[in-house]
Amino acid sequence: MTLIEETVASIAPLDEAAMRDARDHQARLTKPPGSLGVLEELSVRLAGLAGRCPPPLPEPAAVAVFAADHGVHAQGVTPWPQEVTAQMVANFLAGGAVVNAFAAQAGAAVTVIDIGVAAELDDAPGLLRRKIAPSTADMTAGPAMTTDEARRAVETGIQVAQELGSGARCLITGDMGIANTTASAALIAAFTGLPPERVTGRGTGIDDATHAHKIEVVRTALARHGLLGGHGKKPLEVLAAVGGLEHAAIAGLVLGAAALRVPVILDGVIAGAAALVAAALCPDALGGCVAGHRSAEPGHAAAIEALGLRPLVDLELRLGEGTGALLALPLVQSAVRVLHEVATFDSAGVSEKDAGRP
Amino acid sequence: MTLIEETVASIAPLDEAAMRDARDHQARLTKPPGSLGVLEELSVRLAGLAGRCPPPLPEPAAVAVFAADHGVHAQGVTPWPQEVTAQMVANFLAGGAVVNAFAAQAGAAVTVIDIGVAAELDDAPGLLRRKIAPSTADMTAGPAMTTDEARRAVETGIQVAQELGSGARCLITGDMGIANTTASAALIAAFTGLPPERVTGRGTGIDDATHAHKIEVVRTALARHGLLGGHGKKPLEVLAAVGGLEHAAIAGLVLGAAALRVPVILDGVIAGAAALVAAALCPDALGGCVAGHRSAEPGHAAAIEALGLRPLVDLELRLGEGTGALLALPLVQSAVRVLHEVATFDSAGVSEKDAGRP
Repeated sequence: MTLIEETVASIAPLDEAAMRDARDHQARLTKPPGSLGVLEELSVRLAGLAGRCPPPLPEPAAVAVFAADHGVHAQGVTPWPQEVTAQMVANFLAGGAVVNAFAAQAGAAVTVIDIGVAAELDDAPGLLRRKIAPSTADMTAGPAMTTDEARRAVETGIQVAQELGSGARCLITGDMGIANTTASAALIAAFTGLPPERVTGRGTGIDDATHAHKIEVVRTALARHGLLGGHGKKPLEVLAAVGGLEHAAIAGLVLGAAALRVPVILDGVIAGAAALVAAALCPDALGGCVAGHRSAEPGHAAAIEALGLRPLVDLELRLGEGTGALLALPLVQSAVRVLHEVATFDSAGVSEKDAGRP
Repeated sequence: MTLIEETVASIAPLDEAAMRDARDHQARLTKPPGSLGVLEELSVRLAGLAGRCPPPLPEPAAVAVFAADHGVHAQGVTPWPQEVTAQMVANFLAGGAVVNAFAAQAGAAVTVIDIGVAAELDDAPGLLRRKIAPSTADMTAGPAMTTDEARRAVETGIQVAQELGSGARCLITGDMGIANTTASAALIAAFTGLPPERVTGRGTGIDDATHAHKIEVVRTALARHGLLGGHGKKPLEVLAAVGGLEHAAIAGLVLGAAALRVPVILDGVIAGAAALVAAALCPDALGGCVAGHRSAEPGHAAAIEALGLRPLVDLELRLGEGTGALLALPLVQSAVRVLHEVATFDSAGVSEKDAGRP
């Protein structure tokens, strides 16, 4: 078996007994039933992932920022030069980016994985050098990668989950790659069947003409690979045709974390596209995934809806890097902490509501 | 001058120069312009409050949980017995409530202020004994409090802001009081002019019959005090007629914090109603207020819309205590941290987007 097959085979569904325990425990806590809204069901799901109630507190947390370049950049889908990918990786490693500030606030460690940056990067603390290829190829001219490259990138993501998951109790997805919202849109269209214009957004902020052109680039790539509307392609084939190396690796991270029963907080549209790949490979892998936020990208809303996830934060962010997921980390930690620390009506001597009144 | 008048006189509008500095600085940071969405404008507003860019990091933070009982409880608006207010205060002081778990997660200190609990409470660390009256009176039978009581409760809130604000750089509102969503609905209807059925919710979770009765109780109280639809009453008169002692104190906290230029994160519907009182007394007091979340109570959505605030968290919480505001604290801290720690394009050597392409 390949590492992907082994990993998928070891992923179990959520534990129903632990989820029942968590629901029963929530009902005994000193608060009106259901009054923690979305966070109650989240705590139940994380109990199901851990297989016990309470589940471990999701800390420490580790952010895995997968960086890669995209051949489709040549099609003029963004005004940002490709070298910004490597420059921003250097910024992450120097601690100067928003992901660093948010990670510092949340107490999470940042690891950057070069899975496909077009430049040669120098060694640095916090950098894992796992380059599969120096950028993907242009998906409008041929497949973005070979199926073997796609498989190896997914396997690298699994390995990163194993490395980080040995110390961290929560993994957070991050990404960096100029033009990666174009590849994300193509993946989301291919996996949801939605038309390109529904899932292709303005990324870092492009004008109307560039946006229209970006939609046509996505349509051209999907048509070339037979991925418009319904298709019978396998997940790795779709990924290789129009995906990015960071999408592949994040899909692997999701699979690897699910096998370890460690929760994953997904960031924005890149993670949403990658999670669609992971779900196609193994639907149960999504059981421990949390949608950290809803980004301003329309494809992201489509992806998390298809995945059946509800975002925790919705503040019109469109930065990537892991920033939206990091904002959600304290919410996830708070949800689990309730199961650890809050008193029950009995233990605190608080009266329950009178079912006979009024 | 009274303490309220003195405080209102010392509240300044947001500093335009500091806000301009913050906007300029945001534009130079290594991220696409505007890509932090709602958090960018929040950071600008907090710079305006502080009068400098960057504003101080909003930590340490302190939660002020104002506890009080409500005479309208006698009207059968909730199935929870009134003694739960005092029992939950004991739970807060023992560290067993959700507010304690969320505060521990966020690194905030919890102070409980007895501003009007119907029971005599024992001294305990973390409890401030500032009882104005042992519960309000039934607002359907007469004013909930005298205007003097309302004024003294507001002044107590100002004093609590001064006490906590000497150490904390961010204040968080909390509340406890069985039946306080009924008083909140009455205040919100009175200040927004909306009809009772639009702003009266299910509080901790009541059945259809109790909900219909609760709406009628709110309507009866408003009618009795001449507060249905348009009216010419002064803010303190409205507050005394249908408000709670914790609403008065939270309004005071907002005023006191604004005078100190310390941000306040508002919790749910009780804080929303109290902020309407504060805004009526001094519109500039809202400049440093952040809507921590949107609760499931319909009156809360109406209040924050009337206040022009956008909630940071929207997860169907309906617990109160300060829990929704505490979830927002790390988001506020992250927003400000960006202005302190993120590198500029120049300093990080990152290329800016090419305005000529594509």
